[in-house]
Amino acid sequence: MDRYDRFSPIFYPRSVAVIGASAEEGRPGHQFLRVLLEFGFKGELYPVNPDGPAEILGFKTYRSVRDIPYPVDFAFITVPAASVPGVIEDCVAKGLPGVEIFTSGFRETGKEGKKLEDEIVRLAGGKLRIIGPNCFGVYCPRGGLTFLPGARLPSENGDIGFISQSGGLALYFAWAASGCGLRFSKVVSYGNACDLNESDFLEYLGADDDTKVIAAYIEGVKDGNRFFRVARNLLGKKPVIVWKGGLSQVGARAVSSHTGSLAGERAVWKAFSRQTGAVLVDDFEELVDAVLFFRQCRQGVGRRVAVVGGGGAVGVAAGDICERVGLVVPQAPEHIQQKLKELLPPVGTSVRNPFDIGAPVVPPLLFRKILEVLLAWDEIDAVIIDRIYLYGIGALGGMPGRDCEGRVEVIIELQKNTDKQFVVVTEELSTAADKIAVETERRSVQEKLFSSGIVFAPSLSRATVALARVCSYYERVRM
Amino acid sequence: MDRYDRFSPIFYPRSVAVIGASAEEGRPGHQFLRVLLEFGFKGELYPVNPDGPAEILGFKTYRSVRDIPYPVDFAFITVPAASVPGVIEDCVAKGLPGVEIFTSGFRETGKEGKKLEDEIVRLAGGKLRIIGPNCFGVYCPRGGLTFLPGARLPSENGDIGFISQSGGLALYFAWAASGCGLRFSKVVSYGNACDLNESDFLEYLGADDDTKVIAAYIEGVKDGNRFFRVARNLLGKKPVIVWKGGLSQVGARAVSSHTGSLAGERAVWKAFSRQTGAVLVDDFEELVDAVLFFRQCRQGVGRRVAVVGGGGAVGVAAGDICERVGLVVPQAPEHIQQKLKELLPPVGTSVRNPFDIGAPVVPPLLFRKILEVLLAWDEIDAVIIDRIYLYGIGALGGMPGRDCEGRVEVIIELQKNTDKQFVVVTEELSTAADKIAVETERRSVQEKLFSSGIVFAPSLSRATVALARVCSYYERVRM
Repeated sequence: MDRYDRFSPIFYPRSVAVIGASAEEGRPGHQFLRVLLEFGFKGELYPVNPDGPAEILGFKTYRSVRDIPYPVDFAFITVPAASVPGVIEDCVAKGLPGVEIFTSGFRETGKEGKKLEDEIVRLAGGKLRIIGPNCFGVYCPRGGLTFLPGARLPSENGDIGFISQSGGLALYFAWAASGCGLRFSKVVSYGNACDLNESDFLEYLGADDDTKVIAAYIEGVKDGNRFFRVARNLLGKKPVIVWKGGLSQVGARAVSSHTGSLAGERAVWKAFSRQTGAVLVDDFEELVDAVLFFRQCRQGVGRRVAVVGGGGAVGVAAGDICERVGLVVPQAPEHIQQKLKELLPPVGTSVRNPFDIGAPVVPPLLFRKILEVLLAWDEIDAVIIDRIYLYGIGALGGMPGRDCEGRVEVIIELQKNTDKQFVVVTEELSTAADKIAVETERRSVQEKLFSSGIVFAPSLSRATVALARVCSYYERVRM
Repeated sequence: MDRYDRFSPIFYPRSVAVIGASAEEGRPGHQFLRVLLEFGFKGELYPVNPDGPAEILGFKTYRSVRDIPYPVDFAFITVPAASVPGVIEDCVAKGLPGVEIFTSGFRETGKEGKKLEDEIVRLAGGKLRIIGPNCFGVYCPRGGLTFLPGARLPSENGDIGFISQSGGLALYFAWAASGCGLRFSKVVSYGNACDLNESDFLEYLGADDDTKVIAAYIEGVKDGNRFFRVARNLLGKKPVIVWKGGLSQVGARAVSSHTGSLAGERAVWKAFSRQTGAVLVDDFEELVDAVLFFRQCRQGVGRRVAVVGGGGAVGVAAGDICERVGLVVPQAPEHIQQKLKELLPPVGTSVRNPFDIGAPVVPPLLFRKILEVLLAWDEIDAVIIDRIYLYGIGALGGMPGRDCEGRVEVIIELQKNTDKQFVVVTEELSTAADKIAVETERRSVQEKLFSSGIVFAPSLSRATVALARVCSYYERVRM
């Protein structure tokens, strides 16, 4: 048996028991059944509750998981903490391969809770694998599984694997990342990690053919040496992006009441990143951007960029921000400058890099010619496009030459035949309630860019930080 | 005559000449007339063009500004650079108080352009005041004036003054800031600043009763000593927020081709900030956030914060991010913890600060009680609210207790009767094209928060950076 086969019943269960199932709408034991149905789970569902009605949502209720006369792959457990040990005994007796324990009130609450948690681990005996307790469990579109509050997450299979010690964050990240166009192979909220932990999931996702990019939100690590080894083994195979929570004093205080973990020290995590190539990010938005950029960017992309803006201040800001994040903006050589001079008006433009092409409403044909000159320049690896109108002019008013679609098409077309990477800054332009039409257009442009392998971010700062991270990673891989 | 009276004809002109007016739709000399009409300019309009048709957009065309038989307060000049000196002579002869020169092709293009620019300054002779050249000019709702591409900017008067060496940035900032609810007294894009410069506008806005917060995008400063003196005089009177472009080597290269300025050194600007209290920001988003927070935050707000989140990871992230930006998250004293324990379930929550109140769908009445406990805690200055659902649950699905409006109302109600500052993180949740309903709700919540004096930002990082800036400013004021 393959060492990863034991995860199959967890991610692709043929049957799921909901232990603590309820007919009351507000209870998790009811909602979880509904959510699975709404999400489209295709396997068998078995509500379990010793005091429950004969049927819940049309499914026969069992008094114990032991009473189910069919094999059960996986169970969602939402009974009070004190009842969990008994349920675990039942699951072991029934021979379940895995469970997720939604219930909280274990290690994160102190000494008594820790005792209870140790007890369930002992009872599971290493044969029944546990996700949690104090977690949301698994979102795996291929397996038809989702979180309790994740009924409307995308049901298409994808290539991003995410593991998160926080349930809320697993959900928020799934929302935000799928908003960018990303889709998931597996998202695991694993809470207190009493049994299966970050190293298990990292190792599994590392070997999982569906998963191309791995991201993690981690508060504490159970076995530092193993986590290091697993991450180190993935260097050059799959990017591993880590948001480590609790590196400050106050953050560590919050970690202990959240998942009962020890937060660890900043220096340790910096060394971890240096030695394993794992990419550390500092906040939620950086996590989203990094995953998008790692998923989409050309492999091995370098840090020499051309910046194309419609207006002089774009170039100034880009120069400052690129220097800050470690991207290189080489001055264009004479032959490139000359070619651009032939295309652009002599006044109100700049041909040195950053390139100011003057009007942000440049005609598509001219825009293509300008970009073609840059793509032929062999000293750059990526082209950053900022403040060239790709959407929104209609709603914001007052500008001529509205061919936004034409400019978007040019970028998409050119990305097909180049090994350089286009990076598009997709600013919101306005967040006014009466300008929502701009946002609608912007999102549709982002969808087009995504499906053409182009990366984007809502600000120059976010775009450059993410690009620099990808460049650093590939430099580390080449070391 | 008041020393600032000379600015009245520029910001509140009774009559505007458009020199270089055109009947051709695509030309700036046509668009500017249209934009003023669309924006609702109430004064007289005089198209000027020696070769123009008898009428443009229904207004009689004059061959020269000298031929206009009425007084002219202000002119928008969009003739080729080589023709500008002649036009300036005409304007001086006619006795105009001020002009804006839209045309570029001066100092920013090199030696010849600099000569031409010096020539127009000489011809203006200090009597005719010039904005520009190479600029978008003035957006001043009270005066009925707007930029060339600014027909749909808000026409209500406001209290933010913004000066920008970049025209594009002046427009982008006006869009972005007005999207948050902010309104402007004056926005000035002043380009090469051949005559009126950043010090003139800063001094004017400092004395302007309509202006409460001043922001600036600056590439180079004409007279450093004067700018320092003017900014220093405003300390404690009006916040001055500066985004200084071109502090890197590449940024400085872009500055010289954009506005022909000398960018200056980072250390000089840091000293400037320390000594004048002017607030330096590092990118466009920080500029927007800083202006919003300075406009809205309680005067003198301090850096001790309570963080209220629905879920444990919020507190962890907030702890880390607050420490990074210099906000203080004091541990709650026993009596506060006790009061919260009486309100919250014992499991899945934390009462130490950061506060995890468990479900992000907390009922409004309970939410109010929790916040009331925190507002009564005298060791904090602000309350940061993150990942408590205030919008979007309907569209994202799967969660019970959807009373988002109720929670928003609680925050708004409580802000009225406290001197502590509420800071709300208004994340986008999803940028998927089919989740636009979430964004619509989010914007409507932001509008309500804005009009109740509450601050918000789309991420915890942005919110805390902006709050920390405001706190530092008031500490500097109290020094």
